[in-house]
Amino acid sequence: MSQFSKVSILSLGLMGGSLAAALKQRNLAQTIVGWGYREASLEKALVKGYIDSYSLDLAEAVDGAEIVIICSPAKVAETVLLDVVRLASNDTIISDVASVKENLSHVLIDAFGRVPANVVLAHPIAGSENSGIDAANAQLYVDHNVILTPANTSSNQAKQKVTALWQAVGANVSEMPVDEHDRILAGTSHLPHLLAFNMVGALAKLPTSHDVFKYAAGGLRDFTRIAASDPQMWAEIALTNKQAILNMMAMYHAEFQALVQEIETEDEQALIERFRSAKASRDHFSALLSKRHGSGV
Amino acid sequence: MSQFSKVSILSLGLMGGSLAAALKQRNLAQTIVGWGYREASLEKALVKGYIDSYSLDLAEAVDGAEIVIICSPAKVAETVLLDVVRLASNDTIISDVASVKENLSHVLIDAFGRVPANVVLAHPIAGSENSGIDAANAQLYVDHNVILTPANTSSNQAKQKVTALWQAVGANVSEMPVDEHDRILAGTSHLPHLLAFNMVGALAKLPTSHDVFKYAAGGLRDFTRIAASDPQMWAEIALTNKQAILNMMAMYHAEFQALVQEIETEDEQALIERFRSAKASRDHFSALLSKRHGSGV
Repeated sequence: MSQFSKVSILSLGLMGGSLAAALKQRNLAQTIVGWGYREASLEKALVKGYIDSYSLDLAEAVDGAEIVIICSPAKVAETVLLDVVRLASNDTIISDVASVKENLSHVLIDAFGRVPANVVLAHPIAGSENSGIDAANAQLYVDHNVILTPANTSSNQAKQKVTALWQAVGANVSEMPVDEHDRILAGTSHLPHLLAFNMVGALAKLPTSHDVFKYAAGGLRDFTRIAASDPQMWAEIALTNKQAILNMMAMYHAEFQALVQEIETEDEQALIERFRSAKASRDHFSALLSKRHGSGV
Repeated sequence: MSQFSKVSILSLGLMGGSLAAALKQRNLAQTIVGWGYREASLEKALVKGYIDSYSLDLAEAVDGAEIVIICSPAKVAETVLLDVVRLASNDTIISDVASVKENLSHVLIDAFGRVPANVVLAHPIAGSENSGIDAANAQLYVDHNVILTPANTSSNQAKQKVTALWQAVGANVSEMPVDEHDRILAGTSHLPHLLAFNMVGALAKLPTSHDVFKYAAGGLRDFTRIAASDPQMWAEIALTNKQAILNMMAMYHAEFQALVQEIETEDEQALIERFRSAKASRDHFSALLSKRHGSGV
């Protein structure tokens, strides 16, 4: 017998498609139902066998579901979340996968006065610079962190069920307040993506940009890999986590200005100390990741 | 019979050690002689079989050499280069592997009125965040670009011999004026390294830095890989290529300020356009690299 009865996955892109594929591969749900705006993606997910059926009607898609996972991009997720809370039964557990959490918490509180008991927002920290259902894979969440950001008003049952779902597909689940999540992700994920986009953008503007890319080595390739990410999605993230991102950018900017100053004044000792301290942090961080994922990653 | 008679490699770290290992593995030199300040590295290179002998005396190390390759870091390379030109015979071809070229060209012109005929400066665009003789490997230069920056006064024989050496260890050789090299590398290599150091430095200063690194995903890992590079070496690069790097930083800063502005004013269309344009450049650049290295890299 499967662990879950009906699981509804709303929006079948990289995240939703990978979750569906993982649930299906491990036979974790009696039925997996898809919903989304683009029928082509739903049809593909059906053909690949990630979902059992789909509907273009949201009410139908969530009807009688044990769990609904909203996998829409940051801004769209706000609308879908409100609709699902209104359409679904109180027994249906509702969660999501968005990279920013405070905006979703706010729209719930604005609309319902509180985060409803059956809602637990969540963020699986996994992804790829590739997007869409074609990039989906059943192993995406294995050994990755999923952060739940439950409200005081979220029920224990909801927390337990969302935890169980992510653990079942191989993820490590932890909890964090909404605002702390958004501050941390602004640093670990949002700012690096913005800087990578910006680095490539600056290089592309050089008159010698063809040579710049031609003579680039592995350093630039890895550094800018995330600049191949989905533009629309990242514009939404930049705006939904606006304040935390602007705070991180201000902090980064102060470091950048200090670095410029040290180069201008040729302060070699300060530069060595700056790079040494960064290298020590990176080496420590690298060891953390090796412990989590095995040395091969 | 080997292609070269005596090859002297000055400083046996990642770059010099890898070159020695590649020459030895392919039996390209009758004898490979090492020199450096740190006898421990020379001894290791000897034990690993990368070199046939070493000397702590520079005159002895370069005596009778067909080619001398200076593999010292940027700043030290200036001194070593002047010493080698004075000590070596005019028949000895002299080259190097430093990441910055204009400073070396300048010290030669200051000392000798011109770049001597037997000198051709060069830069193999290869490396690793790991440094030292232990990180050396005989395949480091295979399919990588080596840029020669010959002066008008460099002899054809010198150019041909340095070209032959790098081609023999598997590299693709091209030519470029000294100043163009330094401008391009400021963009493709130097600025990304500085930004990566800075990103890690900014994150490490956060009160929540432990969580920041704990919840980091693959994006940050790849983005900051180069922040594990050698601090002393990068301080020297920052200072020896000072003006080109400051110019690139100014250009990057302008892009950064424009991005902050677009987020502050919530200009979603401008953000999407900015990210889309960067993604297009990155996708194009990625295709260039795939063509060069095969799809696996």
